Amino acid sequence: MDTKAMFKLSYGLFVCTAVQGSKINGCIINTAIQAASEPNTITVAINKANYTHDMVKATGVCNVSVISEEANFDLFKHFGFQSGRDVDKFADYPAANYKTAENGVPYITAGTNAYFSLKVKDTVDLGSHTLFICEPTAMEVLTSVPSCTYSYYQDNIKPKPEAVGTTPKGETIWRCRICGYEWVGEELPDDFICPICKHPKADFEKIIR
Amino acid sequence: MDTKAMFKLSYGLFVCTAVQGSKINGCIINTAIQAASEPNTITVAINKANYTHDMVKATGVCNVSVISEEANFDLFKHFGFQSGRDVDKFADYPAANYKTAENGVPYITAGTNAYFSLKVKDTVDLGSHTLFICEPTAMEVLTSVPSCTYSYYQDNIKPKPEAVGTTPKGETIWRCRICGYEWVGEELPDDFICPICKHPKADFEKIIR
Repeated sequence: MDTKAMFKLSYGLFVCTAVQGSKINGCIINTAIQAASEPNTITVAINKANYTHDMVKATGVCNVSVISEEANFDLFKHFGFQSGRDVDKFADYPAANYKTAENGVPYITAGTNAYFSLKVKDTVDLGSHTLFICEPTAMEVLTSVPSCTYSYYQDNIKPKPEAVGTTPKGETIWRCRICGYEWVGEELPDDFICPICKHPKADFEKIIR
Repeated sequence: MDTKAMFKLSYGLFVCTAVQGSKINGCIINTAIQAASEPNTITVAINKANYTHDMVKATGVCNVSVISEEANFDLFKHFGFQSGRDVDKFADYPAANYKTAENGVPYITAGTNAYFSLKVKDTVDLGSHTLFICEPTAMEVLTSVPSCTYSYYQDNIKPKPEAVGTTPKGETIWRCRICGYEWVGEELPDDFICPICKHPKADFEKIIR
């Protein structure tokens, strides 16, 4: 099995937001699709490691904002590269960048082109992820900017760290699986944090060239 | 609710193939995604109106071939604009355009860049569609050509019938929802078939300009 085939599947990119009590949170997801037309059904798969997952599971309500090609990398860093367990993502998030929908949950208005308010009708436990089967209760188009696909993000939004290539002395290279940053040296320090995307050592892979 | 927001969701495009007894069939779908990583899970939503749907439901096995940007409109017409109930889609399909995977089901090799063999682990009835929750049992990359997204298909592969615009006499225009073909006249005949995509009257909408 050539698992690189998995990269041939196409995805949009979205901010999934939720509110539970006084906690407001959101994360980046890539799996919002219309799975049925009658009744109109949107499915969303969320990694259980995301705090937003637990909030959507508990409340049965979320918003999905569709990221557009006008989004900048900061949107992905803000909602994707830090956890709602550690930080309050809406504490320092500019009020001009989001609004609150009728369901009481914020949706993102900067770098997005539409949003959906979703009500969870059913869930399927898929192991690492929960699949939320949802009924849209509201939806709006925000701009006519094209939607950002995962490929567009990889090619145009994600910073491209220069690849080290082969070092003259044939040293080991460690590459960040998240953003592609490469670091040269035999052993990556345990407390290493990627200077570009802030991911830890666990997200680096050893490249043997 | 502005239902145009639904068009902001992004999709790839795929040929889903199945074999049941002596019947070999396939249809175009847009909803194959990785919904979980551990265990690796691919979900596929198929419209119940598709004959392939019934075959996958009965056999629990299918292949999903990822359509690439090199696909031509004929691939979509062949698998998307006719039903396996009426025709044998593999009877006249060139043998050079497909191969048979280990699971005994064909996968498409022309205009595609990868394929997956899927085993159905669970199904969810979503009304118009069934969601098939699948484990990939095989997958291969076929070419490095980028995957065809639904937007790419709309912009680059689907023929663009010239819009009639406004007629001098202000006559009614009927537009095919599938391909955009426009027909001028007060009443579309009941047996009208779109000359471009072969869809029936039911898929036309009346345009009041």
